[in-house]
Amino acid sequence: MITACLDLEGVLIPEIWQNVARLTGIEELMLTTRDIPDYDELMARRLRVLAKHRITIHDVQRAIATMDPLPGAVEFLRELRRRVQTIILSDTFVDFMPSFLAKLDYPTLFCNSLEIAKDGSVTAYRLRQPNGKFEAVRAFKLLNVEVRAAGDSFNDLAMLIEADRGALFLAPAAIQEQYPELPAFHEYDDLLHFLTTE
Amino acid sequence: MITACLDLEGVLIPEIWQNVARLTGIEELMLTTRDIPDYDELMARRLRVLAKHRITIHDVQRAIATMDPLPGAVEFLRELRRRVQTIILSDTFVDFMPSFLAKLDYPTLFCNSLEIAKDGSVTAYRLRQPNGKFEAVRAFKLLNVEVRAAGDSFNDLAMLIEADRGALFLAPAAIQEQYPELPAFHEYDDLLHFLTTE
Repeated sequence: MITACLDLEGVLIPEIWQNVARLTGIEELMLTTRDIPDYDELMARRLRVLAKHRITIHDVQRAIATMDPLPGAVEFLRELRRRVQTIILSDTFVDFMPSFLAKLDYPTLFCNSLEIAKDGSVTAYRLRQPNGKFEAVRAFKLLNVEVRAAGDSFNDLAMLIEADRGALFLAPAAIQEQYPELPAFHEYDDLLHFLTTE
Repeated sequence: MITACLDLEGVLIPEIWQNVARLTGIEELMLTTRDIPDYDELMARRLRVLAKHRITIHDVQRAIATMDPLPGAVEFLRELRRRVQTIILSDTFVDFMPSFLAKLDYPTLFCNSLEIAKDGSVTAYRLRQPNGKFEAVRAFKLLNVEVRAAGDSFNDLAMLIEADRGALFLAPAAIQEQYPELPAFHEYDDLLHFLTTE
């Protein structure tokens, strides 16, 4: 049986942090790994910014609740789940996801999590494991399923290469040029075909 | 994060083969591993019976489509998926499942599959892997998730024992007596609590 592993941000929903920055009006949350390449440093900075502005997980969730999946994503995911087993592999935090999981009809998701104090402040973050997407694909392959995967950015590459069949979706041109061996799709219909047919 | 692994038949939906036997009026399909302990022999017998009566996969699917999930199962599964990541581990065949997967809102399912000829006749069966439920739990544990599991019968025991937390659900008294160390539940609310709380 086929198991499809999908990245979340950029593939099914918009980028979270940039939108939280926009929705809360806090510029500093716009920083990405392009600005601060060290992820630990970037996250420490983000948590300091949230604390400084007294922004709780509830504020962030309320901001995220105003966001919608990418146009066509809900229909694509519904059809994909009708045809193959589907698991979302993301570097996001599950604590950000309640509204999106509801909008996407509760797909199975493996991702990271936050530590939240009683007053709702975000005190720390917990990565599920290093190279989480790659490790998940490797584990699913132990189950004798055919793993197919799609993602849009650098943190997806190890997963795409480890999968039995991997493709870029809505990826920046620079990544497509650097990995010409990976098929690159821009329409959900083409990705659906790639992920589900023999 | 918590990942809940659920058996399917007897936990969320009725037993498939017994109901197909009843719905098609073919007594011989009522046989279980209690009658023929060797699974390969039992399946070979079932496939011969289907062939003899010229019953195609479409006939079987039509019979299964008249069946419903167990009372309360849809609501239980919906709430479970709202709270934790949920994966169904079953020894059923995915080819039997289209109608039930729709009724259950397309949960992620790892199970076995059938080989179907062009005319719809069932020519063989393919097990995903030996000890499929146990291997799946073991693989998920590699992903640093907390695995909780529930099932009702002997083929679930290895999964329940390998999980970080395992319980029997609607299990026969004989199994409950033989495995007193496993919590045994009979109501979805109690199982939900067991699978989702700290």
